[in-house]
Amino acid sequence: MRRQITGFSNPVVKELRALREKKHRKAAGRFLAEGLRLLTDALACGHVPEVLVMSTARDPHPLVDALEAAVNASGGEVIETAPDILSKITGKDNAQSVAGVFAEFDTSLTGLDLSAAPIWLVAQALRDPGNLGTMLRTGDAVGAGGLILIDDCADPFSVEAVRASMGAVFTQKIARGTWEEFLPWLRARPGQLVAASLRDAVPYRGAPYAAPCFVMVGNESRGLPEEYEAACDLRVTMPMKGRADSLNAAVAAAVLAYEVLATLEG
Amino acid sequence: MRRQITGFSNPVVKELRALREKKHRKAAGRFLAEGLRLLTDALACGHVPEVLVMSTARDPHPLVDALEAAVNASGGEVIETAPDILSKITGKDNAQSVAGVFAEFDTSLTGLDLSAAPIWLVAQALRDPGNLGTMLRTGDAVGAGGLILIDDCADPFSVEAVRASMGAVFTQKIARGTWEEFLPWLRARPGQLVAASLRDAVPYRGAPYAAPCFVMVGNESRGLPEEYEAACDLRVTMPMKGRADSLNAAVAAAVLAYEVLATLEG
Repeated sequence: MRRQITGFSNPVVKELRALREKKHRKAAGRFLAEGLRLLTDALACGHVPEVLVMSTARDPHPLVDALEAAVNASGGEVIETAPDILSKITGKDNAQSVAGVFAEFDTSLTGLDLSAAPIWLVAQALRDPGNLGTMLRTGDAVGAGGLILIDDCADPFSVEAVRASMGAVFTQKIARGTWEEFLPWLRARPGQLVAASLRDAVPYRGAPYAAPCFVMVGNESRGLPEEYEAACDLRVTMPMKGRADSLNAAVAAAVLAYEVLATLEG
Repeated sequence: MRRQITGFSNPVVKELRALREKKHRKAAGRFLAEGLRLLTDALACGHVPEVLVMSTARDPHPLVDALEAAVNASGGEVIETAPDILSKITGKDNAQSVAGVFAEFDTSLTGLDLSAAPIWLVAQALRDPGNLGTMLRTGDAVGAGGLILIDDCADPFSVEAVRASMGAVFTQKIARGTWEEFLPWLRARPGQLVAASLRDAVPYRGAPYAAPCFVMVGNESRGLPEEYEAACDLRVTMPMKGRADSLNAAVAAAVLAYEVLATLEG
């Protein structure tokens, strides 16, 4: 059963569009993701959208058929609408052929299975949803288990973060907590906490990384608080040959994570 | 001499604000940069703003005095205005204390001095100004000489790119050209062209990088055209442990560039 929506003022359009705002996402416990590739990745990871929105301008595609069948089988809703209405929902010009509404995942620390992966990324007070999505994407690439968000981070379920993650929001576990929750949780189990730092640090090449390794980066403007760095098992420094004394947060996480990966696979 | 501007409708406000748009930047040959740290870096690299805009809400600071003195000495203009007018000019809430208008630099390939650095970054059809600015910032960090923009890239002088560069727009050389201009230019001198690739590639760790090394990444959606990859001296591949088959472009450039740096400094 496909429901046809033809008007911009349809209340469903308004409801879906509202998911672009954090407070509405939080109230609904749902978020938006767009694009056939991304929704297909989601499905492969066991995430079936509650609502599938298809553009009337889409080309026929077996992956779209597979999505529709999965949504129908799970009792979800399938909506067909004009591309300009789909654009209005996702806020993106040149609408993708499909978008989906997903239930937000469990983001408790206790939901993480540390035996699942040797690397975990940790972001502290990261404010840019693009950086956050990029970290998820990098995490997928290095075989990390997930991304742990400490303190007041951007929302990983925002449209921008989901888009930048290129689907990794579905392959990576996401957990959220304060530093006061995270540190005791970490210390109750094996795990090496590593941060890029200028204080009392060793070169990042050849540092003694060990699994499970938690690679932590801090806020875009302020970096990590000094006491957070002090609590790390390993502080490493990357060459800074120019005038700048820091890298973009997502870049720093990636350079470090690839170094950790190379060391662990040694 | 400080000129006071008190009205939003002042034509100078309109003129400066227009520099946020590419066509106006191109017509004026000037661009905007904001923030005391960034303008101070610019000054240290010999770039004096043609116009310095100072917020009336700024705190006194010797670096602001130094900027003002430099602008006056070079015959530039100093404007003082309210923070909300400065916000309107730069398009950013919470205006910085200062902004500057700079003449765009020479971006010809022939203006590059390859003996100046062992690493150069190359971006092909990169569309995201944030990615472009991040590549400049990474270039500064790895001691690259500059960023070469191939084909139709985002504008490195856009407010977003300048902001993401964190000042590296002033420390890195920037050149622009088509592939048909770039490749003969490159082949007329020593230089190794390297790209991340899935085709006929060797592992990026331990690859035989050599200076001057040109690290190239492609468009965010399409990657590099096949014939561009084929023209490279070295194609390298990075581990992709998850579902994704690529990294964010700026991340890929950074992971590769740090690997090149480590190899060259061996």
